[in-house]
Amino acid sequence: MALIILAHPDLTQSVANKTIIEVLKKSNIDMEIRNLHELYPDFKINISAEQQALLQHQTIVFQYPFYWYGMPALLKHWFDEVFQHQFAYGSKGDRLKGKNFLPSFTVGSSEKSYTALGFQHFRVHEFCKNLEQTAYHTQMNYIDPLYFHGTSSAAGYGEEEIKTRAKEHAQKLIDKILSLKNLCTK
Amino acid sequence: MALIILAHPDLTQSVANKTIIEVLKKSNIDMEIRNLHELYPDFKINISAEQQALLQHQTIVFQYPFYWYGMPALLKHWFDEVFQHQFAYGSKGDRLKGKNFLPSFTVGSSEKSYTALGFQHFRVHEFCKNLEQTAYHTQMNYIDPLYFHGTSSAAGYGEEEIKTRAKEHAQKLIDKILSLKNLCTK
Repeated sequence: MALIILAHPDLTQSVANKTIIEVLKKSNIDMEIRNLHELYPDFKINISAEQQALLQHQTIVFQYPFYWYGMPALLKHWFDEVFQHQFAYGSKGDRLKGKNFLPSFTVGSSEKSYTALGFQHFRVHEFCKNLEQTAYHTQMNYIDPLYFHGTSSAAGYGEEEIKTRAKEHAQKLIDKILSLKNLCTK
Repeated sequence: MALIILAHPDLTQSVANKTIIEVLKKSNIDMEIRNLHELYPDFKINISAEQQALLQHQTIVFQYPFYWYGMPALLKHWFDEVFQHQFAYGSKGDRLKGKNFLPSFTVGSSEKSYTALGFQHFRVHEFCKNLEQTAYHTQMNYIDPLYFHGTSSAAGYGEEEIKTRAKEHAQKLIDKILSLKNLCTK
């Protein structure tokens, strides 16, 4: 039902993303998790395997930490390689049509910093238009991203509070996936 | 003076980006071109070499084709790896302060498509806020991107018209680099 495309360069060192994945695994959601950095540490993506995985699921979740106001490079590589012409878009490229496109990510600094008066200057959603248009271009249903702030230990956030918020986030993600199952059928 | 960070997965097959680079090379601008896909086909970036190159130039040009409303994955990887904490940002990370950040890219489909009524839905600048904030976060001078439309042969654009526009673009880029030299001194 749900395909989780996980992109974190070092999940063993992660707090937020690792916690989210642990909660997802313990849930009773029918899902497949593809850990891109584990599968493709050399960036050599098996395009066919990824396309087959996409075809088998209705909801595609992209789970990652926000890096330089976007996705980690390996996930961008995944899009560049897997979302091919005449597969994902183009005159015959409708294989992803009607599937749900659900970004789920973690943001290092505070919500306050992501405002015009804050040091990140823009709202998080302003950095997500590439995701939104990627969904439109592939005829997928764009679901507004789920994310939470304050996962940077360098910015002074403690491990326990990050874990607590990651668990809350994971529950929201599970609820969202379940709600989409009902709303969007093939 | 100018560092050109070139990111194109296969420059031999390129028309627009290859033409731009050829025109740049024939100009009398003092520059260093770093072809990321030639240097790092395995995505293993030499962080120290890239940081040293950055330190030696006043204007950093990012030259690439627009892929899925952003930069090619290897260029994102370059940012993720090279723009390190306490080098590019952080309490002691001011090594890029005052340098010019100049995106220069090519866009496959038409200008008309990149409007609210077009099939790309958003203006090109709406997809560039990640670049703008990356510049702010590293205390660099963000220069509005130079780009032009209609480089996709799949979309029906001919090689000769693409080359003509690429040459015009390259000249604008050269003029911009030269103007920055005068405006922004160390």
